[in-house]
Amino acid sequence: MKIALAQIDYHIGNFEGNLSKMLAAVESAKEQGADLICFGELAVCGYPPRDFLEFDDFIRQSQASVEALKQVSQGIGIVVGAPSRNPVKAGKDLYNSAYFLSEGEVIGIQHKALLPTYDIFDEYRYFEPATSFQTITFKGKKIALSICEDIWNVGNENPLYTICPLDEMMHEKPDFILNLSASPFDYAHAIARIQVIRANVERYGIPLFYANHTGAQTDIIFDGGSIVMSPDGQVFDEMPYFEECLKVYDLEEVLRGGRSSEQPKNKVQLIHDALVLGIRDYFRKLGFKKAILGLSGGIDSAVTVVLATKALGPENVRVLLMPSQFSSGHSVDDARQLAENLGVAYDIIAIRPMYEAFETALKTQFEGQPFNVTEENIQARIRGTLLMAMSNKFGHILLNTTNKSEMAVGYGTLYGDMCGGISVLGDVYKTEVYELANYLNAAAEVIPKNSIVKPPSAELRPGQKDSDSLPPYEILDPLLFQYIECHQGPRELIEMGFEEALVKRVLRMVNINEFKREQAAPVLRVSSKGFGMGRRMPIVGKYLS
Amino acid sequence: MKIALAQIDYHIGNFEGNLSKMLAAVESAKEQGADLICFGELAVCGYPPRDFLEFDDFIRQSQASVEALKQVSQGIGIVVGAPSRNPVKAGKDLYNSAYFLSEGEVIGIQHKALLPTYDIFDEYRYFEPATSFQTITFKGKKIALSICEDIWNVGNENPLYTICPLDEMMHEKPDFILNLSASPFDYAHAIARIQVIRANVERYGIPLFYANHTGAQTDIIFDGGSIVMSPDGQVFDEMPYFEECLKVYDLEEVLRGGRSSEQPKNKVQLIHDALVLGIRDYFRKLGFKKAILGLSGGIDSAVTVVLATKALGPENVRVLLMPSQFSSGHSVDDARQLAENLGVAYDIIAIRPMYEAFETALKTQFEGQPFNVTEENIQARIRGTLLMAMSNKFGHILLNTTNKSEMAVGYGTLYGDMCGGISVLGDVYKTEVYELANYLNAAAEVIPKNSIVKPPSAELRPGQKDSDSLPPYEILDPLLFQYIECHQGPRELIEMGFEEALVKRVLRMVNINEFKREQAAPVLRVSSKGFGMGRRMPIVGKYLS
Repeated sequence: MKIALAQIDYHIGNFEGNLSKMLAAVESAKEQGADLICFGELAVCGYPPRDFLEFDDFIRQSQASVEALKQVSQGIGIVVGAPSRNPVKAGKDLYNSAYFLSEGEVIGIQHKALLPTYDIFDEYRYFEPATSFQTITFKGKKIALSICEDIWNVGNENPLYTICPLDEMMHEKPDFILNLSASPFDYAHAIARIQVIRANVERYGIPLFYANHTGAQTDIIFDGGSIVMSPDGQVFDEMPYFEECLKVYDLEEVLRGGRSSEQPKNKVQLIHDALVLGIRDYFRKLGFKKAILGLSGGIDSAVTVVLATKALGPENVRVLLMPSQFSSGHSVDDARQLAENLGVAYDIIAIRPMYEAFETALKTQFEGQPFNVTEENIQARIRGTLLMAMSNKFGHILLNTTNKSEMAVGYGTLYGDMCGGISVLGDVYKTEVYELANYLNAAAEVIPKNSIVKPPSAELRPGQKDSDSLPPYEILDPLLFQYIECHQGPRELIEMGFEEALVKRVLRMVNINEFKREQAAPVLRVSSKGFGMGRRMPIVGKYLS
Repeated sequence: MKIALAQIDYHIGNFEGNLSKMLAAVESAKEQGADLICFGELAVCGYPPRDFLEFDDFIRQSQASVEALKQVSQGIGIVVGAPSRNPVKAGKDLYNSAYFLSEGEVIGIQHKALLPTYDIFDEYRYFEPATSFQTITFKGKKIALSICEDIWNVGNENPLYTICPLDEMMHEKPDFILNLSASPFDYAHAIARIQVIRANVERYGIPLFYANHTGAQTDIIFDGGSIVMSPDGQVFDEMPYFEECLKVYDLEEVLRGGRSSEQPKNKVQLIHDALVLGIRDYFRKLGFKKAILGLSGGIDSAVTVVLATKALGPENVRVLLMPSQFSSGHSVDDARQLAENLGVAYDIIAIRPMYEAFETALKTQFEGQPFNVTEENIQARIRGTLLMAMSNKFGHILLNTTNKSEMAVGYGTLYGDMCGGISVLGDVYKTEVYELANYLNAAAEVIPKNSIVKPPSAELRPGQKDSDSLPPYEILDPLLFQYIECHQGPRELIEMGFEEALVKRVLRMVNINEFKREQAAPVLRVSSKGFGMGRRMPIVGKYLS
């Protein structure tokens, strides 16, 4: 038996686009002699469809796509994910389902049992879990169908769940497992994925074919990396990351095993590739081509513009250099040099005239008040307004350049440098931004060295440095990582050796700035805990604040 | 037996504050001879605690509050909601629990079974549902303990659920039902609440005591309205809305019934009172006192400033009038008149100098480009910057004045008039804003009549009217209501009689503006479907767009 896996960049709600990609994949799989083709979870509508699922019309359109695929299932089995109606009146009225289509018929449906409802996932908001499990027989083979999370409770050892769907099917002695996934990227996920697939294969002693999505849906990035694992527990094949792919595998060869073929898993490279795809797909799926951003001469905007250029091409990236009276000469030079290295168009607009106009306008009200963060924010907001004006006039999307460390502690101006359609580095700590910069400069110096080595500064008052207001990033970032990604509380952090006063200060900064993050741009997610839908915090909460 | 219900304005994560209110209530109940006092759902930590629940420290502090209440349970039974650890390794590691404390001991715990996971609710993200149900015997009475949603599946007829917790307890023949709730306000909720309580009482033939939260937690407002219902199905008592309350009821009297005492339920008044409380609690819980906002002379900012003045006092409200060259003379006069009527401080700052500075700065780039929405947005962003500058300098919170109709169709400038810490009218359609204005003017003309009767306009270009870009609000608002609150899709809307082209145009406007709402201020929720956590839509989704 020949089994095709289709790793596709779906687009939420774009039924026509998704269907046309799937029809092309079916055609190609047929040409390559495949008996069976497997798509991803909720492939017809894209993932995560969120509250679109609450519209009857959305479910009807999903079903129409399943119907269209059924029509082309002559001579090939098609396995595809789609939402389906729960015919029973009790419980949520939808299932997250895998359809098995063959010769113009639905020959089997398996619903998803384990519904992730944590981090970015809300599946229990929409779906009723499956309670019955049967294999599907196709061309003499018994196939265990599973959807994404269904394979993540091996031997019932995952404390989140109380049932193991594949355990329920094994008494039927299936020949192999198919898994339809929509499993989002984080920089450690590819390793975890292979581990869990191996645990399943070792438990059941049969091969597992795993089809994932690729592509970004706003903040959530899918890396592909679809996998075929032989009964020997070796990776028979792992599809490339961050690109579409269709391959046909011979079941006999997979059963024989003895082949190990993995993709390289370098953290910085993975983050880099994810961000480039994240930018590209955000623009493509919204129907935009051109990006704009401000270049400060600092490292964050430098890294962002290089990534944007890779994603969109230098001809589609435009930058503004917006020096104030507090900007160092170096900053403008570094920014200009970077723009020239990349070949992107740049304009220099000094913000002083606008700043002075605001100063004059507020003179009466601000009489006798000292210069403080207010005046810093005015500068940042003038820049935001200039960038948005260019964006509005010429149809650019503004890229936000705030990094995760700043976003965590609220070191940024709402409606100022926090503006943007998408945040490129909002899930990348400052220390990781340096790693990215060095990675981008590995072959040649694209980012001027000075932008990398000089002490970080917002340049909003004379002689300002980040270190005036923040602990050094080498201390701050590990503390933030333990608090945000690892959910360690004050007691645990102090036990780990972080200084008590620092812990209190940093946790307070994180918590009192929830109101800023609430209004931040969506953040391309590359870690296991990004800001956004995956981290839901009260704004008026008085806790560790 | 004497039963006290405590209706309290809790504060998420403010363990000390919540405990001190509860200790005072226990003391007062004891003085009034109560045998038993009942607090709300998750009272120790406030509701909704969201991802704070993922911190061990947060659970420890919750448990410490239960412990402290246990210590004062000499001579009185205390029923209180708190998160508790699931001792079993399978399933989510927390329960949403009701503790029954008496004489320094925990004499019973009932976990919540029905975990709302829709709209603003995410309970299945954190909690394992209860599977066992027992009454608790206290002073010779058998008490059926239930938590909020547990009473919302009467006779298993709610399609969301498959179990009815009270049905499970009835074979023990309880004497009455206690329900600990955290049931958020919407303008139709008080009626629904009484209906569901009545359905329970009629099914079981015993009284029901229902203790709700009051107060606002950012966007989510609790209206109180705690209820005692006699076996005759009459409302023995309904506590006032939007305020704290402690009352002691005699069980014998409640059993006798024959008394009907409800709060008035006028939609506009309810929305008005909810918004005033929403503003007040947002400031109080964040530790702020003073608000600022821009007054345009239009109806939205007029209604907002009146509500703010009621919530915070005129001495704590400051307004800016920021005319542009496109503002009508009337607008400034109306705004000034309103400020004077309210006795709030106002400043007039013309935005022309800043606007001209931006025009000059962008002259090269904008050469040959016609005036368009870009220039309109620049004006809105200058105003946002001025308001935020005042806010930053003097410690005001900026109130956002965008209404729900505008927010829905994206008729507003991101980082401009969409700025603000909290959106006061973002869940109030324009036609409802008029109702509010008339309500506020009922006793005397506070809002100048001209602000109410003149055609709505953003005044960002010569002679501009809302009706240039939008359908009339009398048509737009019902269409939006059917789409947003009632989840009607294009087919159903057209069947209802809305014109097809209009349906397509409006739904497209709603969907393509998701990116703006993603960065909007939190919206005080007064309807059954507000923008924010209760409505989760993809940004890059290509559906009805």
